[in-house]
Amino acid sequence: MSHPFFTRHQGLLEQATQAIANRGYWSPFAEMPSPKVYGETANDDGKAAFEARLKKPFGLKQPGTVGQVGNEVSPYGFELGATYPKPDLDQLFAAVNQALPAWRKAGPEAWVGVSLEILQRINKKSFEIAYAVMHTTGQAFMMAFQAGGPHAQDRGLEAVAYAWEEMRRIPKSAYWEKPQGKNEPLKMEKRYAIVPRGVGLVIGCCTFPTWNGYPGLFASLATGNAVVVKPHPGAILPLAVTVEVAREVLQEAGFDPNVVTLVAHDPSDRTASTLALHPEVRLIDFTGSSANGTWLERNAVQAHVFTEKAGVNQIIIDSTGDFKGMVRNIAFSLSLYSGQMCTAPQNIYIPKGGIETPQGHLSFDQVASAIGESIAKLTSDPAKAVEVLGAIQNEGVAQRLDSSRLLGEIVVDSRALEHPQFPKARIRTPLLLKVDASDEAKIMQELFGPISFAIATDDTSQSIALAHRGAKEHGALTLSAYTTDPAVTEQIRDGAEDAGVALSLNLTGGVFVNQSAAFSDFHATGANPAANASLSDSAFVANRFRVVQSRVHV
Amino acid sequence: MSHPFFTRHQGLLEQATQAIANRGYWSPFAEMPSPKVYGETANDDGKAAFEARLKKPFGLKQPGTVGQVGNEVSPYGFELGATYPKPDLDQLFAAVNQALPAWRKAGPEAWVGVSLEILQRINKKSFEIAYAVMHTTGQAFMMAFQAGGPHAQDRGLEAVAYAWEEMRRIPKSAYWEKPQGKNEPLKMEKRYAIVPRGVGLVIGCCTFPTWNGYPGLFASLATGNAVVVKPHPGAILPLAVTVEVAREVLQEAGFDPNVVTLVAHDPSDRTASTLALHPEVRLIDFTGSSANGTWLERNAVQAHVFTEKAGVNQIIIDSTGDFKGMVRNIAFSLSLYSGQMCTAPQNIYIPKGGIETPQGHLSFDQVASAIGESIAKLTSDPAKAVEVLGAIQNEGVAQRLDSSRLLGEIVVDSRALEHPQFPKARIRTPLLLKVDASDEAKIMQELFGPISFAIATDDTSQSIALAHRGAKEHGALTLSAYTTDPAVTEQIRDGAEDAGVALSLNLTGGVFVNQSAAFSDFHATGANPAANASLSDSAFVANRFRVVQSRVHV
Repeated sequence: MSHPFFTRHQGLLEQATQAIANRGYWSPFAEMPSPKVYGETANDDGKAAFEARLKKPFGLKQPGTVGQVGNEVSPYGFELGATYPKPDLDQLFAAVNQALPAWRKAGPEAWVGVSLEILQRINKKSFEIAYAVMHTTGQAFMMAFQAGGPHAQDRGLEAVAYAWEEMRRIPKSAYWEKPQGKNEPLKMEKRYAIVPRGVGLVIGCCTFPTWNGYPGLFASLATGNAVVVKPHPGAILPLAVTVEVAREVLQEAGFDPNVVTLVAHDPSDRTASTLALHPEVRLIDFTGSSANGTWLERNAVQAHVFTEKAGVNQIIIDSTGDFKGMVRNIAFSLSLYSGQMCTAPQNIYIPKGGIETPQGHLSFDQVASAIGESIAKLTSDPAKAVEVLGAIQNEGVAQRLDSSRLLGEIVVDSRALEHPQFPKARIRTPLLLKVDASDEAKIMQELFGPISFAIATDDTSQSIALAHRGAKEHGALTLSAYTTDPAVTEQIRDGAEDAGVALSLNLTGGVFVNQSAAFSDFHATGANPAANASLSDSAFVANRFRVVQSRVHV
Repeated sequence: MSHPFFTRHQGLLEQATQAIANRGYWSPFAEMPSPKVYGETANDDGKAAFEARLKKPFGLKQPGTVGQVGNEVSPYGFELGATYPKPDLDQLFAAVNQALPAWRKAGPEAWVGVSLEILQRINKKSFEIAYAVMHTTGQAFMMAFQAGGPHAQDRGLEAVAYAWEEMRRIPKSAYWEKPQGKNEPLKMEKRYAIVPRGVGLVIGCCTFPTWNGYPGLFASLATGNAVVVKPHPGAILPLAVTVEVAREVLQEAGFDPNVVTLVAHDPSDRTASTLALHPEVRLIDFTGSSANGTWLERNAVQAHVFTEKAGVNQIIIDSTGDFKGMVRNIAFSLSLYSGQMCTAPQNIYIPKGGIETPQGHLSFDQVASAIGESIAKLTSDPAKAVEVLGAIQNEGVAQRLDSSRLLGEIVVDSRALEHPQFPKARIRTPLLLKVDASDEAKIMQELFGPISFAIATDDTSQSIALAHRGAKEHGALTLSAYTTDPAVTEQIRDGAEDAGVALSLNLTGGVFVNQSAAFSDFHATGANPAANASLSDSAFVANRFRVVQSRVHV
């Protein structure tokens, strides 16, 4: 007897498992915030639901609650005023441990069925979550909806599909018959039980709490683990809503809701490290800084740690068959969510002797200036600009932007813009600087935010060598390259494969290097310091469960 | 164009991938040392080949060789006198790094094809390897042949099959077309390159150098990594022969032989930890002590570490429908290779009030004595006994055996036996002691060697609780149980699943709890302290390679 939630979503699961095998375009959750898909009142309802969360305690009843925490501030300029249960961790883990045995015994179909039901219900809350994402991360509404809603749900479903694909390949039982020459064969029946690791911890980030949080959450849940969700103190609400939905579904399915719990905390306390070193935490999914991620990899040795950290994303410009398209594409990539995507480019390598284009030979300065002008044009109308730029998530990013102005010659300066609806919003246009390739100390560090360099190299060979070393030593999630030369393409591809960085070639249209599509693009390779895992692949899920066999003669 | 070695072995690979999915009985490498299979002169040739290795430097030409090391002593009482290249690690790694790029670019079919060809050629050397295993580990010839030869080859092939199964699921390319409403769809071609982690390190043990070494060796090699093999100083020869074959096949296939290298070393030096912490070592497969394995897990954080460590394997006796069969089976399990299998049982829990059997109620003492008598009978004829017991691998095991005699009341004492062919062989019969369940400090530790306890418990509930806690806290690879009661069976199974230990029920015939069959039995679960990985499953291979994509508009 299949679990009813499994039966309900089996068709979706089959499509998802085909999608991860074929890796063509597929997305079950509609990315446009369209009334036709989500309902005529979906936007108003979602906005109202978001506003109803403000200035009050979040309605999550968890065991061991000893107080309230939370002081999120919207990058658009107001305090959210929501507070969340502050748990006593011993009491919370005791409750999680009580919830685990029945969850463990329920088996893969129940785990997967419940996970899919949670995703479906989260999808229905996409507008509410979009406003929650917008007013914690600073993303513009459209990105908050798409990346925080359906695209995050896609990534969650993708992780469930990988988990299912790995688990379904373990047979429930096998008949084993070993010949013994002239004697009777040895005959055994073997049973293979899939068991979870135990407790998974999801450590959220403040820029993409759901997009980066869902893969780990659903990978652990779909393999039978309990999940403790610890959001970034600056972006709790989107994950609190997620946990609320998960607990509701678990309860409906007859399980203890404490299979999924929220641990909100103050930025100043030691909750993150205490949780990460908790002996019962056996899986950790982390998105955040390289320092914290590397600390986890080295210290949380009781757990399997999956990290998405920082890196230096790069663009190599060798030559192009579409100069305007290239410039526009790069300018948009630098501007989108003010460079606060972990996939946003930072270093742009251009030969100091210039490049060949359909418009003829263009000098280094002409290329750099064209990108700068394109940024200026894209951000000239504040009302339109804010829909691309979003807001700067926190004051630290704004300060880094200011101090970075001294790192090189300014091609285009960062400006503060006023948001038509939110006068207190923290809006800044991108900064583009010119530097020489010899300035390695400046360029080979992640400057998170809308900060980028046009870097003069001796030639494309040096550009490739720098990009290779940058990715290999400092980490990178993306590499973009423009060239019309097949031999150069092969050199770049070989370097990308050796450095373990995803490569985009000659993007001049509506796809941007920052974008990573679930079911098709592997987000991060896990093969350079920017991440030790990929969203998602077999390695992301295969070690979240184990197989325990029993055998008996028949 | 497929690689010729891949084409040659594709049929075998297909059978192997089916076998890991079905998990019934399958073994491509004949386990009987039969002249019909291996050739009329195979035994004589293998013995001669082994003897030709003695008292001289092993003919392995590796870069950076700065001397010779090696002083293996056969547990059957003679010095092997073989020596092996002592490498300068910097020079060796430089050579490995030179070998890597072409190997990386060769791709999955070449990696898998070369791996399968190596296995086939190793199979042809099964007799030579058997003698090498026998005279390093102390295993009796038949076990040395089976476990060191065909069964080890099976385990190697199994790892290759898992690696292939994971890699073949990554498409080489995909066409991605995203609708854009009324506009032209976005169209991209995506390519997915499988790339290795880098260098894998295999740390061998002195009891099953090939059986425990091949899974990691072949899992890393078949996923495109270079492999450095570091044998235990007491059991170098079987892995040296293996490395020799691997290098020969690599060279024939047009690759640099330094893709696979041997690092032999003196027991007193720091080669093991130096290698384990080497920044270029990204994968480590370890079999050995809990102390060393745990050290690796905590310190070799630059690598993915797969460990098979120690544990306390247990037997629960509740009741039986075949008392004689049970006693004979247990006695044999305790005697086989003198308890030096990582799967050998140690703690036997028996209710102090006795058990029900077809012969009626039998007391605790009657059950313990019957096992003791069965051991005595099995080992009464030295000529036959040595074929079961093999020899004690090293003096430390013999000393532990002596000092353990004080841990409880002796049911059957250990005796030294004389080997008919090898008068200096270190042969000991198993020691069985009676203790009370309250003596936890004595029983909840691994006493590696032919040492076991008949433990008086209050009742089967206490037996189950002890076995559960023992496995969960101290680790266990196997749990065996005897009961005629379905409710007790379910309790035991639930405990086994929670503690992550493989369960064998009511073994009274020709299958022993120590035995683990490739393609059917998962060896270790990775879910308790005895091991962090299983031989083999998806998790054992999926993270040994990464996928690097590139995308371009079409």
